[in-house]
Amino acid sequence: MHRRLVGGVGELRETDVSKRAFNFCAGPAALPEAVLQRAQAELLDWNGKGLSVMEMSHRSDDYVAIAEKAEQDLRDLLAIPSNYKVLFLQGGASQQFAEIALNLLPEDGTADYIDTGIWSKKSIEEARRYGNVNVAASAKPYDYFAIPGQNEWQLTKDAAYVHYASNETIGGLQFDWIPETGDVPLVVDMSSDILSRELDVSKFGLIYAGAQKNIGPSGLVVVIVREDLLGRARSSTPTMLNYKVAADNGSMYNTPATFSWYLSGLVFEWLKEQGGVAAMEQRNRAKKELLYGAIDASSLYSNPIAVNARSWMNVPFRLADERLDKAFLAGADARGLLNLKGHRSVGGMRASIYNAVGLDGVQALVAYMAEFEKEHA
Amino acid sequence: MHRRLVGGVGELRETDVSKRAFNFCAGPAALPEAVLQRAQAELLDWNGKGLSVMEMSHRSDDYVAIAEKAEQDLRDLLAIPSNYKVLFLQGGASQQFAEIALNLLPEDGTADYIDTGIWSKKSIEEARRYGNVNVAASAKPYDYFAIPGQNEWQLTKDAAYVHYASNETIGGLQFDWIPETGDVPLVVDMSSDILSRELDVSKFGLIYAGAQKNIGPSGLVVVIVREDLLGRARSSTPTMLNYKVAADNGSMYNTPATFSWYLSGLVFEWLKEQGGVAAMEQRNRAKKELLYGAIDASSLYSNPIAVNARSWMNVPFRLADERLDKAFLAGADARGLLNLKGHRSVGGMRASIYNAVGLDGVQALVAYMAEFEKEHA
Repeated sequence: MHRRLVGGVGELRETDVSKRAFNFCAGPAALPEAVLQRAQAELLDWNGKGLSVMEMSHRSDDYVAIAEKAEQDLRDLLAIPSNYKVLFLQGGASQQFAEIALNLLPEDGTADYIDTGIWSKKSIEEARRYGNVNVAASAKPYDYFAIPGQNEWQLTKDAAYVHYASNETIGGLQFDWIPETGDVPLVVDMSSDILSRELDVSKFGLIYAGAQKNIGPSGLVVVIVREDLLGRARSSTPTMLNYKVAADNGSMYNTPATFSWYLSGLVFEWLKEQGGVAAMEQRNRAKKELLYGAIDASSLYSNPIAVNARSWMNVPFRLADERLDKAFLAGADARGLLNLKGHRSVGGMRASIYNAVGLDGVQALVAYMAEFEKEHA
Repeated sequence: MHRRLVGGVGELRETDVSKRAFNFCAGPAALPEAVLQRAQAELLDWNGKGLSVMEMSHRSDDYVAIAEKAEQDLRDLLAIPSNYKVLFLQGGASQQFAEIALNLLPEDGTADYIDTGIWSKKSIEEARRYGNVNVAASAKPYDYFAIPGQNEWQLTKDAAYVHYASNETIGGLQFDWIPETGDVPLVVDMSSDILSRELDVSKFGLIYAGAQKNIGPSGLVVVIVREDLLGRARSSTPTMLNYKVAADNGSMYNTPATFSWYLSGLVFEWLKEQGGVAAMEQRNRAKKELLYGAIDASSLYSNPIAVNARSWMNVPFRLADERLDKAFLAGADARGLLNLKGHRSVGGMRASIYNAVGLDGVQALVAYMAEFEKEHA
């Protein structure tokens, strides 16, 4: 038990950090407790400077050092080659859907997209507003329960790029392989699985990820882009959406989301302390094996996704009798197992088990699932 | 003195809130200490829910209540009429420079812009990329030390809108009047003076403000837009930059900057506790009178701006001998009077005295200025 006295607006009260719940939210999602504690400790006074990180000029030496360390730690974690720029932008992955087309798709060009679910469909819809989009493969014939192998893809010769989502947060579908596209730049929405397992960045032209799953707070999107892809934006691109402008200005063409960037830096620091991405992969493998194992061994719970396409991060599951859903969620809430309700378009349950959800969280969930099944057998 | 024990990543240390400095940064800027204390208290556990606001789904009942309360408090503070939408967006004012043109300027239309300094010039440059811009008036003939009166403006008949910046953060130039544009919508960049004094929102078609001065952390921009101006976006507008899409989705077309929105809500709550915008106006008037009074009474310090155009928020001043600048800044730093260095394009000093900088901060600054002048007489 760990109590401390803290001040509020016109009040004093106690925070009991032992009351932290297990949070299975799909995003904004759980953050490492150590990161929140550090942010809490520094919130009014960063490094004895007498002000909060939120109150610092983004051009001050102190803040620039915070920002640069965050970028360097991310580069270390993913072994990002030096010919890639790392951008800390705003607007989330949804803004990237347009930004990618505006920056990389010539008005008379074609981009190939792979449809594996709701998020890739959204990226396709937005890209279609800016040019010719070829859906080179779709999981639709598999009811979005499996990912078509590359032998089934109809890629365009000389496409501007090939786009896919490595993990579909809602469907719970994840690539366990990286497509081969030769000289055509590969663009990936990695919002919900970046930093969760090892990654060869050099296979990609551009990687983007909304922060609010495995990186930090919402309101930040990280873009990792190969330098030769900069400078291709069409003339109508808003200045703030032009990757080259962002790259040339160190993501500070205007004031960036300074606090989110700082907090992401704390997450990167925490990831390094944990042993980096290789260690997270090991831990995430154990977590998903435990959870899918429990689902597969049960006669109450089920997950429909093809085994090789099951997401390590977002695990949707249904109860055999959906009339039990409400009782399942109420019991989970009572045990501090929060946000297990599935997305409205899918129903059932969904456990999002990003980096910040430890094995202990999954163990608590699996124990509860077994108990609930026994009670309702 | 107020000490507490707080935990960090792998360490415990003390935060001494009596060590908070006076922060005159132009932005990201000082936040009310009570707001930071409240955020600190809740950082790991909001309202006993066992999670941080940063870890909540933006679609959860708890978060939606936080977001809606923030909007309502802002509506109360500014008496925003019901035919205006309040949007909480990303990308800062700089993204708005394009967004305003994309949403409000027809491809064959003309928009009028008033040039009063660096920020209005940036908005003009960006708008020119999307259509015909008429600079209806410029402060250039006045060396940007005064604002041309409306009798000098050359407005376009049937302009799509008239745009101005109510306060130029760098030049220290502020409108103390609201332009009259009849039926032509008036659009204003109020990034650095929103909420600092009373305001008749009904005079405007659209008001926008980057958060990081008088609202909250960076990474958030508030847009207050009259409903009849929605739905005019040109077809090439990225979905995320379309005001109607944002309005129809309660600023949650995708995940918004949830923590910045929450923290802005705490600032709005604090403003209401302080007596609202009328009380802030009174306090800000006292602050600026004290500071300009000290400058005008001195033979060392000077401010070049026409008296009726002097900014209440950003007070640039020069020392008669610029060789003293370094000593002035070092002495200020030593006294916890931070970030007084002027913008590189202007030189000298600049004290930004937003809402969160109290009269005590300005008193401390003025006392130091007098002491420094005496020492260097």
